[in-house]
Amino acid sequence: MAHEITVKNKDAMRTRMELMILKVQADFCKSLQEFDDKEFIVDKWAGKRGSGGVSCIIQNGTVFEKAAILTSVVHGHLSDNAAERLKKRRSDIRGTIIQYFAAGLSVVIHPRNPMIPTFHCNFRYFEIIDEHDKRYWWFGGGVDLTPYYLDVDDVKYFHKTLKYACDTYNPKFYPEFKQQCDRYFYIEHRHERRGVGGIFFDDLDCLGPQGTFEFVKTCAQSIIPCYSAVVKKHLTDAYGYAERQWQLLRRGRYAEFNLIYDRGTKFGLNTPESRVESVLASLPLEARWDYKHSPLPGSKEAELIKVLVKPKDWVTDED
Amino acid sequence: MAHEITVKNKDAMRTRMELMILKVQADFCKSLQEFDDKEFIVDKWAGKRGSGGVSCIIQNGTVFEKAAILTSVVHGHLSDNAAERLKKRRSDIRGTIIQYFAAGLSVVIHPRNPMIPTFHCNFRYFEIIDEHDKRYWWFGGGVDLTPYYLDVDDVKYFHKTLKYACDTYNPKFYPEFKQQCDRYFYIEHRHERRGVGGIFFDDLDCLGPQGTFEFVKTCAQSIIPCYSAVVKKHLTDAYGYAERQWQLLRRGRYAEFNLIYDRGTKFGLNTPESRVESVLASLPLEARWDYKHSPLPGSKEAELIKVLVKPKDWVTDED
Repeated sequence: MAHEITVKNKDAMRTRMELMILKVQADFCKSLQEFDDKEFIVDKWAGKRGSGGVSCIIQNGTVFEKAAILTSVVHGHLSDNAAERLKKRRSDIRGTIIQYFAAGLSVVIHPRNPMIPTFHCNFRYFEIIDEHDKRYWWFGGGVDLTPYYLDVDDVKYFHKTLKYACDTYNPKFYPEFKQQCDRYFYIEHRHERRGVGGIFFDDLDCLGPQGTFEFVKTCAQSIIPCYSAVVKKHLTDAYGYAERQWQLLRRGRYAEFNLIYDRGTKFGLNTPESRVESVLASLPLEARWDYKHSPLPGSKEAELIKVLVKPKDWVTDED
Repeated sequence: MAHEITVKNKDAMRTRMELMILKVQADFCKSLQEFDDKEFIVDKWAGKRGSGGVSCIIQNGTVFEKAAILTSVVHGHLSDNAAERLKKRRSDIRGTIIQYFAAGLSVVIHPRNPMIPTFHCNFRYFEIIDEHDKRYWWFGGGVDLTPYYLDVDDVKYFHKTLKYACDTYNPKFYPEFKQQCDRYFYIEHRHERRGVGGIFFDDLDCLGPQGTFEFVKTCAQSIIPCYSAVVKKHLTDAYGYAERQWQLLRRGRYAEFNLIYDRGTKFGLNTPESRVESVLASLPLEARWDYKHSPLPGSKEAELIKVLVKPKDWVTDED
């Protein structure tokens, strides 16, 4: 359910969100920079009517093949397509949508070493204003991990971190958002997920403006030390040609998900106020598609596929 | 305009089309096989209710990094999505669509040498049967060339071959289908086309069943010697690391087009009777995405971009 904004200063949340994502962006960059000899380039861009963003990128780094930590604040008019899709999802929005506002953080880290998983998170605040000047607002977010080789301890640690962040606000959040994540990151035509999941939520407002904001902030902040620890653990793991090829093939699947299914990519490509370089920064530096590739039964690669096909409960499962 | 089938044997065209595409597939394979030490693997597949196809693939060949020459015959029930999209495009189709039939040839050749362009063509025959047992039929097709480095002579030769094939049937075809091709292979979010075009047509029936079939056959047959000549010409052209990287970047754009915009890919991924490995065989073996890549002004790479942004008239332009 969307709510009208009742705070006195209707722009207060826009500002708070923008400051928060800029802080998390800086913290994330600082944390990852410790691993890589190559420095983040900081690319500020400004679009039309005050839309703009900051893109922090490492490409061809020693540890990170491609890392994109992006913030953006865009506002303007939804395309007919985007408005139609939105109203289909949210029947509570009435009248003609005349303006939208979106502030978000988007992180995708593609490490070079196939033993380090790819990481993604996105947190966003959204406002819609209809023809009667009525405002609707909500938060959305997603955090998910895409390993190339399964390290059960990593995955459990990752999920437990997210559960802990969720439980502080509502014990129903983690199980629900975990399930939503497994549903969302599903590559339908491959009958598999793109990774081992995490959490995914959208249209969230049930804790009120301040509470929902705090929840999103907690998720964003708690994920930085967690992913950094996973990177550190596998920093010097050995790998060879075969592991690299498998990683590239899985990155092809990642690109398939982002280009075919991802709602954020669709929104970005259909929104004149956004910027294509930022929207597609999530794509890997390299990817491959082999015809009819199938991992050998019993191999490490086949072991990964099993959990992509059938998601596990990483928090309580003891096997 | 779609037409009802008036021939006595309503299945005659299905059979003729299937035989034709199998012949063109064999001819194409034979023609390309001469260049490569690696042999085409021939992969026959059978789906549900008599759908099936033949996939001829070279992967990691000496000349062809990935070559996919596919035929398929699928029939069944359109998904709600696919039926909705089709009826939006063709207002003449009334009533509930209860069955479809599609027979097609699909060719994508990604050569290893960046001086040899990527080639694609697709020819298909489509039938729809509505709830009143009324049949609609049409042909569709597309042929286009995607160079990494511009060789004007190649592109002119390619377009002139297509014009010659078209002119035999109707002098209006080439200019119209050339324009449709430039419109179709447009990567909207990049504001550029994926290549130097060719021809594209859909819902074609204006020559009657036999005439339209003959036209499609002529196009399919005339393109084989043309592309073979282009391959032969550049077979031993020199290239280095930089040219390979540029080729991989452009292949990323190719993957973007196929996964985001291509109607055939969408149809394939949404159709239970098709096979994902065949649908996605068009994707390159390797691709890359660089953040904010832009060719140096005046470079060979920038020269290519110019004609992708603003299509040229390759047949009459004398510059």
